[in-house]
Amino acid sequence: MDRRNFLKNGLKVGLGVAVGVAAGGGIALASRGENTNLPYPYVKLDPERVAQRAYNYYRKGHCAYAVFAAILDELKEKVGEPYTYIPSELYVYGKGGIVGWGTVCGTLNGACGIITLTCKDYGKLIDTLFSWYEKTELPTFVPKGKVAYPKSVSNSPLCHVSVMKWCKAATNHFGRHIAYNSKERSERCARLSASVARKTVELLNDYHEGRLVPVKIKGFQKTKMDCMECHSKTR
Amino acid sequence: MDRRNFLKNGLKVGLGVAVGVAAGGGIALASRGENTNLPYPYVKLDPERVAQRAYNYYRKGHCAYAVFAAILDELKEKVGEPYTYIPSELYVYGKGGIVGWGTVCGTLNGACGIITLTCKDYGKLIDTLFSWYEKTELPTFVPKGKVAYPKSVSNSPLCHVSVMKWCKAATNHFGRHIAYNSKERSERCARLSASVARKTVELLNDYHEGRLVPVKIKGFQKTKMDCMECHSKTR
Repeated sequence: MDRRNFLKNGLKVGLGVAVGVAAGGGIALASRGENTNLPYPYVKLDPERVAQRAYNYYRKGHCAYAVFAAILDELKEKVGEPYTYIPSELYVYGKGGIVGWGTVCGTLNGACGIITLTCKDYGKLIDTLFSWYEKTELPTFVPKGKVAYPKSVSNSPLCHVSVMKWCKAATNHFGRHIAYNSKERSERCARLSASVARKTVELLNDYHEGRLVPVKIKGFQKTKMDCMECHSKTR
Repeated sequence: MDRRNFLKNGLKVGLGVAVGVAAGGGIALASRGENTNLPYPYVKLDPERVAQRAYNYYRKGHCAYAVFAAILDELKEKVGEPYTYIPSELYVYGKGGIVGWGTVCGTLNGACGIITLTCKDYGKLIDTLFSWYEKTELPTFVPKGKVAYPKSVSNSPLCHVSVMKWCKAATNHFGRHIAYNSKERSERCARLSASVARKTVELLNDYHEGRLVPVKIKGFQKTKMDCMECHSKTR
């Protein structure tokens, strides 16, 4: 459904139910925005444009907000309702693996929110995104006029593991200690937000055009983290 | 703002902007639902009622959905807009630490969504909830007419760690192997969803009544997971 039809259909419904008198004599408002059945209609987005937006948004609300809001705000502008009813700030809590607890990387949590809003087969897209995330040298995004940053492979979807592996790679690269609370790590996470937002939009576009080849994860353990990292025999 | 005032104010705004003619000659719909500034208005909820609802919802959409939707649907019924515009299914992806990846416990991810929707100081509530989660013998919820389940202390906000520690405790308790994919583990996660939903509502009620004493986390590492679980000297 394109935006014109969307508005036309919205109008029909809207005129019908926008203001109604409830049974009890009170007045209730309703609109088609209250139909919250997922998935919501998706339109093709520009991955590069969204990546730049996510990079900019990182300074406003960190990683999870950057990915979720960058994609959501594009959909608010291109589709309108029902996306306009979703608060763009919902995922601000995802920063630092959820307010600094180091659990799931916030870029992934924000991406999951958007994927679930827009895809019936959200699980397939999330598996594909997570698998890409833990195997890929990141960040891939380079802001205009800046030089590329050192990259690392996280081998895990966890913030703490991903951040610390990058800090190690960056320490080697820059020849001085790069700590978790350095401005370089912050810039890395801004570029990571852009990288994950771009990849998410590529996956969404492919899925909605019937071109997605989802990654199939074999076995019980989806992450390919080495079990012995936590289950060494000395414990 | 109670529901009556909320509707009255909504009506004023609604009549003003519900149907407007856009500059380009097209017709655009808008309503007060499009004001998505957080936090949204909260009303006191019944923790026991929400716990039972989360327990029931687990069968529909697993852990993260159970906590998020149980609280959201109560707010939809008691407050109405703007909660009615949020899809209750948004957090279905959170199950098994995000579609089985074993990262953050889904009950916590769902709770974070609701906390961020309703609280300016979402970080303080999340710290308090996570700290309680990793130190408390869980699950605490017992369905009516059923016996209590074995409990375990996760010492971590991660799904994989929390589940496997419980499986070990349950294996000792029942005197037979309780696996991660057993019906007992599933029942434990349903009761865990109810336990976390109840605690979240207690925290929300306390916060909005000015009675919350938030937990302050000292040091860089918020989780009290033993570093050497992943960083043993043999690696």
